[in-house]
Amino acid sequence: MGDIKVGIIMGSQSDWPTMKEAADILDQLAIPYEAKIVSAHRTPDRLWEYGKTAVDNGLHVIIAGAGGAAHLPGMMASKTRVPVIGVPVQTRALSGVDSLYSILQMPRGFPVATMAIGAAGAANAGLMAAGILALQDMALAERLDTWRQSLSDSIPQEPSDD
Amino acid sequence: MGDIKVGIIMGSQSDWPTMKEAADILDQLAIPYEAKIVSAHRTPDRLWEYGKTAVDNGLHVIIAGAGGAAHLPGMMASKTRVPVIGVPVQTRALSGVDSLYSILQMPRGFPVATMAIGAAGAANAGLMAAGILALQDMALAERLDTWRQSLSDSIPQEPSDD
Amino acid sequence: MGDIKVGIIMGSQSDWPTMKEAADILDQLAIPYEAKIVSAHRTPDRLWEYGKTAVDNGLHVIIAGAGGAAHLPGMMASKTRVPVIGVPVQTRALSGVDSLYSILQMPRGFPVATMAIGAAGAANAGLMAAGILALQDMALAERLDTWRQSLSDSIPQEPSDD
Amino acid sequence: MGDIKVGIIMGSQSDWPTMKEAADILDQLAIPYEAKIVSAHRTPDRLWEYGKTAVDNGLHVIIAGAGGAAHLPGMMASKTRVPVIGVPVQTRALSGVDSLYSILQMPRGFPVATMAIGAAGAANAGLMAAGILALQDMALAERLDTWRQSLSDSIPQEPSDD
Amino acid sequence: MGDIKVGIIMGSQSDWPTMKEAADILDQLAIPYEAKIVSAHRTPDRLWEYGKTAVDNGLHVIIAGAGGAAHLPGMMASKTRVPVIGVPVQTRALSGVDSLYSILQMPRGFPVATMAIGAAGAANAGLMAAGILALQDMALAERLDTWRQSLSDSIPQEPSDD
Amino acid sequence: MGDIKVGIIMGSQSDWPTMKEAADILDQLAIPYEAKIVSAHRTPDRLWEYGKTAVDNGLHVIIAGAGGAAHLPGMMASKTRVPVIGVPVQTRALSGVDSLYSILQMPRGFPVATMAIGAAGAANAGLMAAGILALQDMALAERLDTWRQSLSDSIPQEPSDD
Amino acid sequence: MGDIKVGIIMGSQSDWPTMKEAADILDQLAIPYEAKIVSAHRTPDRLWEYGKTAVDNGLHVIIAGAGGAAHLPGMMASKTRVPVIGVPVQTRALSGVDSLYSILQMPRGFPVATMAIGAAGAANAGLMAAGILALQDMALAERLDTWRQSLSDSIPQEPSDD
Amino acid sequence: MGDIKVGIIMGSQSDWPTMKEAADILDQLAIPYEAKIVSAHRTPDRLWEYGKTAVDNGLHVIIAGAGGAAHLPGMMASKTRVPVIGVPVQTRALSGVDSLYSILQMPRGFPVATMAIGAAGAANAGLMAAGILALQDMALAERLDTWRQSLSDSIPQEPSDD
Repeated sequence: MGDIKVGIIMGSQSDWPTMKEAADILDQLAIPYEAKIVSAHRTPDRLWEYGKTAVDNGLHVIIAGAGGAAHLPGMMASKTRVPVIGVPVQTRALSGVDSLYSILQMPRGFPVATMAIGAAGAANAGLMAAGILALQDMALAERLDTWRQSLSDSIPQEPSDD
Repeated sequence: MGDIKVGIIMGSQSDWPTMKEAADILDQLAIPYEAKIVSAHRTPDRLWEYGKTAVDNGLHVIIAGAGGAAHLPGMMASKTRVPVIGVPVQTRALSGVDSLYSILQMPRGFPVATMAIGAAGAANAGLMAAGILALQDMALAERLDTWRQSLSDSIPQEPSDD
Repeated sequence: MGDIKVGIIMGSQSDWPTMKEAADILDQLAIPYEAKIVSAHRTPDRLWEYGKTAVDNGLHVIIAGAGGAAHLPGMMASKTRVPVIGVPVQTRALSGVDSLYSILQMPRGFPVATMAIGAAGAANAGLMAAGILALQDMALAERLDTWRQSLSDSIPQEPSDD
Repeated sequence: MGDIKVGIIMGSQSDWPTMKEAADILDQLAIPYEAKIVSAHRTPDRLWEYGKTAVDNGLHVIIAGAGGAAHLPGMMASKTRVPVIGVPVQTRALSGVDSLYSILQMPRGFPVATMAIGAAGAANAGLMAAGILALQDMALAERLDTWRQSLSDSIPQEPSDD
Repeated sequence: MGDIKVGIIMGSQSDWPTMKEAADILDQLAIPYEAKIVSAHRTPDRLWEYGKTAVDNGLHVIIAGAGGAAHLPGMMASKTRVPVIGVPVQTRALSGVDSLYSILQMPRGFPVATMAIGAAGAANAGLMAAGILALQDMALAERLDTWRQSLSDSIPQEPSDD
Repeated sequence: MGDIKVGIIMGSQSDWPTMKEAADILDQLAIPYEAKIVSAHRTPDRLWEYGKTAVDNGLHVIIAGAGGAAHLPGMMASKTRVPVIGVPVQTRALSGVDSLYSILQMPRGFPVATMAIGAAGAANAGLMAAGILALQDMALAERLDTWRQSLSDSIPQEPSDD
Repeated sequence: MGDIKVGIIMGSQSDWPTMKEAADILDQLAIPYEAKIVSAHRTPDRLWEYGKTAVDNGLHVIIAGAGGAAHLPGMMASKTRVPVIGVPVQTRALSGVDSLYSILQMPRGFPVATMAIGAAGAANAGLMAAGILALQDMALAERLDTWRQSLSDSIPQEPSDD
Repeated sequence: MGDIKVGIIMGSQSDWPTMKEAADILDQLAIPYEAKIVSAHRTPDRLWEYGKTAVDNGLHVIIAGAGGAAHLPGMMASKTRVPVIGVPVQTRALSGVDSLYSILQMPRGFPVATMAIGAAGAANAGLMAAGILALQDMALAERLDTWRQSLSDSIPQEPSDD
């Protein structure tokens, strides 16, 4: 696994268009990562294994996205002390409020760092991972500062009709 | 474990005042059961073990109550084909809507038979368990019919100011 | 009626695209069923008759789908001790939260095993029915285990951009 | 049954403190009424009978209060063309939003005249009944006008700290 | 105004596609009506005039549809004792829950008979008006019974894939 | 009416404990005001009169508080171009979300400057009124600046357990 | 900056289609304004500067639109006593309820005059600004009265099918 | 500031009973911290200063709690790349859903690691901080593992009536 410190996991293939936003941010910041499908309900043993080996595999952050009764982030937080960032994927009937509540409302003992619903939340999961890794990687800290400054610099002074 | 066909499990001691309503119904209908604390997050291995042995232990129904990011019913449904009945326990900030969405919105493949939020839901979990067991137990079916008839007979014709 | 142990009922023709998911699961598991339109409001006497004869007709599970002020599952639960599984059909203005509350919030005495809103919930209703029937049908239990295993096996290790 | 044109029905004794507000208004306006407990789930046959005989019994308005999966008003509307006024009783976990959606969201064909959640809604159910009866009872129309005028006259010009 | 006993009023032209459903029902039942635009905010004096003359103009029912901060039904109920039926029109951001709460949550003294959100609610407003008028019009009562019976008769026994 | 430029109006006496917070702020800032009960439904003519004379009476701001189907702020905005600030009063069943939607969701043409639900919103209504009046009253502007600075100065550096 | 008394600011270019409605109203009423992008999170220093110079720059009203965790209106209200009107921009997952709560629920001390969600709210922000400016500009007051009268005059008496 | 790597900040003294739960966890894990009141609206300059100096002061995690229009966590995330953990404090009218949406729904670029509403969320903020610090502090990692194991060990096998 080498230098990979960030694992992006998601409940199903259908979460990838959302979670890809996290991967894109990590790519922009030159942070290596792996992306895996780990379904809490369909592949619970995979979840177990992933959680139990996370520390030994050198992971520093796990980004977990899921929708509906989104148990993946919380169950992963139960299995490892590696920080887990949760991304509520938008759903059809309940717009992702179901995903949000399932991820956010964790009991005392097992935090999940919950991000906004949907694509913006996934991108921010990548940035939160970067912020955590930057605490011990000055070069990354500088890349992150530059990224943030570029975002600010990209804002025009006035709105445009085009 | 003998004749015990119903397992009542809950995420914490604080769920018991709610889940006791299920136990009371089972007592009234002379259905043996066991009651256990199985926390999805704090004792995930206990959850795993309970799920994997449920069929061999002769369980026919599992009643699972939990609050907040209530992962217990859904994770249990992932680990066993024994029917799982979920009871959303009422919570402080979100009144149990968080518990409800976490239990209800299961993905295709892993149903949880969700009951109403709180004590009435727990009592109904006991009755749903009874209805399932009654399919192959004529004596129980008669006790259930009697219980239902008694409930109907208890309704007065007119409201009373006392 | 012969071997039919599962009745799928729904409030109107417009619920069929949702409820068909339940039928598809039952087909996959080789469980015979009947599908009927039984409207709580437009054909209340049909509901009465269906409920009163359910036990004698050999039904072991009733799957009832409805939307809006979805009274069908709850009224059916009032008329028979046969387990009723409720499917909240998604609605236009309230996304099925109206259907959900009408089905879920049953008073003590008359449980409805409520599934997720919409198509996933209907499919899970079929699986819940299978789980109940499997308690007394070892061959079905094996088919259900196989179905569940296939679902798990179908999950790839990594997300794909295609 | 004589001159009784208004029936107040409710799902259980526990709804009476709310529904009594409707009775109080009818008393104030000298409108005779009957008050009955008719539970959609526990006494469905009573509901059936009440609905089928409503026209012949001379009822002109049925006020129906219920909480949770509140099926009473809607099922009554299915059984009779006598106008049904529904009162959503406040509930513990969901504050009566469950009652409201179950009563309000009736399908095309079976209207329920839904009032505000709780006591104010029950009082208004009495006033709505009065307004309907007043269409063919000039003396009642005058009493209703007087009642409304008194309410307006009771409003002080300025708020008071006492 | 002659025989017109039902007034359909709405807050703006954009409510007409919804409110037309009420008109269609009245047409089917041969009940004469008028349809007017009366905006609570843009034409408050028109509202005042309509309300103050409603009794003298012979109106027996006012059907009022509005969306958003839907003040029309409630203000009309304040101005006349003629029964007011309110139809919450679906809105863009809040799906008509804003319309619903503005119409439903009337204070003690001024009931509005609230219908379901959107087109089904508008149709039911027409049927509720018919039910009220039928109390003193036996021929209409029979037409209404026939309409209801036709609706019931139109329900097929089984769902169709076509 | 002399120098009174702010009118505080409310739907009923029961709104006064909330609306008094607005009056307290105006007192602190030495802004004269009047406080009146003006019920949209119970005293609509009073509302009409108040709105029509607002400009001539020299009012510069109207603060209007109401709960439930809170029509007072919006109807006042319909009757006068004087800026209307709306305060949603907290309610029992719906916590003031009904009040909020009724006040906030005004159609194009008739803005209501909506404040937070409850007491903090009422206090802020007073401050918003002050901010508007301060545009043409430099002494008041200074008093408002001082009030704001005092609020900031009152914040301790660290939380205290006492 | 000359005669510009109204500043329209928004969190990003994507808010402009909504906020343009405010600008259109100001154009119709011949009120000069400036439109700027000021992001609370991406350009906080720009926000600071805008707020601190608002009084000196002669601004009398600031219209601030933002979506999601919409901090712009509230932070601006913290930095200046110039009245701030907030417009909650509609969002994808939560329909603008997130924007609304972030803008509306300001603590005691820092009012934001919140408008309806989306385009109607933005238009009304322009009208609220006009109402405030009209307090000291009689010619504008007349233009605003005319605008309001035209809106009322544009309402037809009856709905049209075309 | 020495070894202090965690800053707990909150919008007001009234947030301390909630945020104290975070401090308690940090005490249990022997993690030094500071606790400050930093109000986004009342002391914006304090917020600015805290954010701009966070990196230089050696902070590795900022825990920020706030209620209502809770701008503190998001504005802090805008001012520093140090990871910000947000705690939505429960509120009176909206139960903390307002706090939640204001903290959670941050735009792309500025993540806030949002915890559950209220006290459990505050405790979890402390644990999340510990998890982040443990990535570079093996002794803390062991203390955290021990803490987690103790929590698991404290769960009894069966519920107790006492």
